[in-house]
Amino acid sequence: MAERLVVIGGDAAGMAAASQAKRLRPDLEVVAFERSHFASYSACGIPYWIAGDVGDAGPLIARSPEEHRKNGIDLRMRTDVVEVDLDRGTVKAREHDTGQTSEVGFDQVVFATGAAPVRPDLPGSDAAGIFGVQTLDDGAAVIAELKHEPRRAVVVGGGYIGVEMAEALFRHGLEVTVVERGKEPMRTLDPDMAAIVHHAMECLGVDVRTNSAAEGFDADAEGHVRGVTVGGETLPADLVVLGLGVRPETSVARAAGLPVGRANGLCTDLRMRMPGRSGVWAAGDCVETIDRVSGLRVHMPLGTHANKQGRVAGTNIGGGYATFPGVVRTAVSRVCDLEIARTGLLEADAEQAGFGFVTARIESTTRAGYFPGAEKITVKVLAERRTGRLLGGQIVGQEDSGKRIDALAVALWNEMTVEEITSLDLGYAPPFSPVWDPVLISARKAADAVRTADH
Amino acid sequence: MAERLVVIGGDAAGMAAASQAKRLRPDLEVVAFERSHFASYSACGIPYWIAGDVGDAGPLIARSPEEHRKNGIDLRMRTDVVEVDLDRGTVKAREHDTGQTSEVGFDQVVFATGAAPVRPDLPGSDAAGIFGVQTLDDGAAVIAELKHEPRRAVVVGGGYIGVEMAEALFRHGLEVTVVERGKEPMRTLDPDMAAIVHHAMECLGVDVRTNSAAEGFDADAEGHVRGVTVGGETLPADLVVLGLGVRPETSVARAAGLPVGRANGLCTDLRMRMPGRSGVWAAGDCVETIDRVSGLRVHMPLGTHANKQGRVAGTNIGGGYATFPGVVRTAVSRVCDLEIARTGLLEADAEQAGFGFVTARIESTTRAGYFPGAEKITVKVLAERRTGRLLGGQIVGQEDSGKRIDALAVALWNEMTVEEITSLDLGYAPPFSPVWDPVLISARKAADAVRTADH
Repeated sequence: MAERLVVIGGDAAGMAAASQAKRLRPDLEVVAFERSHFASYSACGIPYWIAGDVGDAGPLIARSPEEHRKNGIDLRMRTDVVEVDLDRGTVKAREHDTGQTSEVGFDQVVFATGAAPVRPDLPGSDAAGIFGVQTLDDGAAVIAELKHEPRRAVVVGGGYIGVEMAEALFRHGLEVTVVERGKEPMRTLDPDMAAIVHHAMECLGVDVRTNSAAEGFDADAEGHVRGVTVGGETLPADLVVLGLGVRPETSVARAAGLPVGRANGLCTDLRMRMPGRSGVWAAGDCVETIDRVSGLRVHMPLGTHANKQGRVAGTNIGGGYATFPGVVRTAVSRVCDLEIARTGLLEADAEQAGFGFVTARIESTTRAGYFPGAEKITVKVLAERRTGRLLGGQIVGQEDSGKRIDALAVALWNEMTVEEITSLDLGYAPPFSPVWDPVLISARKAADAVRTADH
Repeated sequence: MAERLVVIGGDAAGMAAASQAKRLRPDLEVVAFERSHFASYSACGIPYWIAGDVGDAGPLIARSPEEHRKNGIDLRMRTDVVEVDLDRGTVKAREHDTGQTSEVGFDQVVFATGAAPVRPDLPGSDAAGIFGVQTLDDGAAVIAELKHEPRRAVVVGGGYIGVEMAEALFRHGLEVTVVERGKEPMRTLDPDMAAIVHHAMECLGVDVRTNSAAEGFDADAEGHVRGVTVGGETLPADLVVLGLGVRPETSVARAAGLPVGRANGLCTDLRMRMPGRSGVWAAGDCVETIDRVSGLRVHMPLGTHANKQGRVAGTNIGGGYATFPGVVRTAVSRVCDLEIARTGLLEADAEQAGFGFVTARIESTTRAGYFPGAEKITVKVLAERRTGRLLGGQIVGQEDSGKRIDALAVALWNEMTVEEITSLDLGYAPPFSPVWDPVLISARKAADAVRTADH
């Protein structure tokens, strides 16, 4: 009998693992279970789909269930895995539409169960018209709701997704309020950098309430949301989006006896194998990974990691060798004409990890100052005291700002000091950069700060 | 008496050295000589100025002579240094306009004499209407010539400057022919990558003659160019631009007894000091530097290096400590809507340096394939056999392609292998990149090639 691989979760990580394993070992029988209507899709594209940048959900789907099946993967849609027995090597699966359950045996299993949006345990949070934006099903639900022409939206949480959704809804003509618990929205940036984003959102016309938290939701007689309580006041809302982040979805794995770690994710080894278990793998938004800068384990639910981790698991399952050596927490986003990027540690992260550090923030332009289209860019870097090791970088600016984070991300990966970074040979020509690239200017200022910090 | 620094050459390197030295040691007397009408300007901006992207030369000048003088630098314009006596510590300078010569003593001296365009030793090459594009004076001369409404231009040499100038002249409505000795224009790329640029130039309507060389120039009765002889045929031309590259301008330095190296540039140490000489420095387009990949000394006349080297020299002269640790030959350019970039070694460079290598070339998109504005990008990488060490990268693509070279440039600087590069944490979001960044896809393919090359 052929060896069988069961994959739990048919999105980026699961299908990357399934496809890579099947490619390397065509004799392997591969069964994959996906609970939603869609597999292999770009969850990161959902806000842009809702905004109207992308016409429909089709292009967000990298590979259809039929294509996977053509490649020899038995992909079962709308089917939940409700139980895993690691000792017996079986999963129990339930079809959504029929309620039928079945048991499938496996020799190896990949947990790729993704992440679930944090839903606040607040009065009224189960009202209709309150949405997460985690799955294509969520996206379709928001788009269906928009057909009822809601006038006012409240976005709870001002992280990436919250801010992107605020802009998407604003572009549909809604009045939008963002409710953010912290001092500034975009908590993926330090407050001084996030303030630039905050200002841009206000200029656009989005109402941003900081140091505020949702306390509950009001519903009308039909059970549809009509308001959000914030600081005792009720903000009217015909539509609410929850952008409170996500948590690793590990319930089935935990029920099967697998442990979770510091960041509530499954803790794999470098090959994406669950330690102490033969043939048990995990990948994607349900795992935690190593932050190479702090050494701590972190949860970084991003499609790019999910794809890489899935491919690594699949390569190893297929008899090859590959590792996922961790992350440096790079992220990039676009909101209100601003490109926003970070890599490495924020100030709060660096403090938590025990680093002493200096910071440097500079303003420059994306092209030679005299070149048409030169736009403002702000770069901030953190460097360790004494050693000068780069600890993190943040960028906020207009067009052609965001991907400049990659130079810092690669420098960080290689544990370069800011002094070393000042000498880097980055691409220069007037349409692309001032003669001193903004990244180099920030490193120069940080190197000065390192030299003077301990005198 | 105050110690005196003499700086020979008032462009990027010279004035960066002068300014930095004066800032750190305000007691230092600084005298700088510049032969042209302009100091501290962006030579790299000249093709864009001629093209009309930049209205006039003003913005190309980072700091005017008056500003330098306000900062305490005695900058003498239109003055050639014709002789340097290192033993006596004197320079002999001649003013262009008056012909007057004077002698100035120094305690330290910086050679920042730049580079001179290669002028072919061909019949008729001194005709009017034949231009280099190295200095702002050259740029002004081309612009003055354009007022006479030339109809046909020939650009001799299809390197960066030649290709940029071809586009600039084309945009002025001229019929443009590029004459290139090699198999493809853009010899800063491998032929397979350069072919993409070649095709784009032809689509635009520029006539590109490869495997061709200028053999001489025809002039009319007034001594103005009217044709270029190529392969026995005469191409009519009212204007000729020489884009044959530049050579280190070291005549005064050599006459003073300073040696030049493998690439005909002055050979400094890491601090930009001429070895064996106290108080003698050099920086900018007149020096050669270390190619960190091949270990060979190379001539890389780019404003970004000139600025860094000048600053390093000035820091050391001012009593500080700084080094210029070499280059990885990164360059980026834009022509005919294509962004063109390279870092590290081309195939021919790698062979010359003695590397055995594999190559990988991939096509991808600049954004998620479904995202509006996703454009085609081609990435090629070279990796050493066995070790898999990255040796070079080349990128040709549309908007948002060029600066992606920086990720490869930093990886190269850190001697990463292509296998390591596949795991890099680069910025991902649909408006910025496919879920696998094109740079990572190229590294993946190269890593596969490394694994299979030696089986």
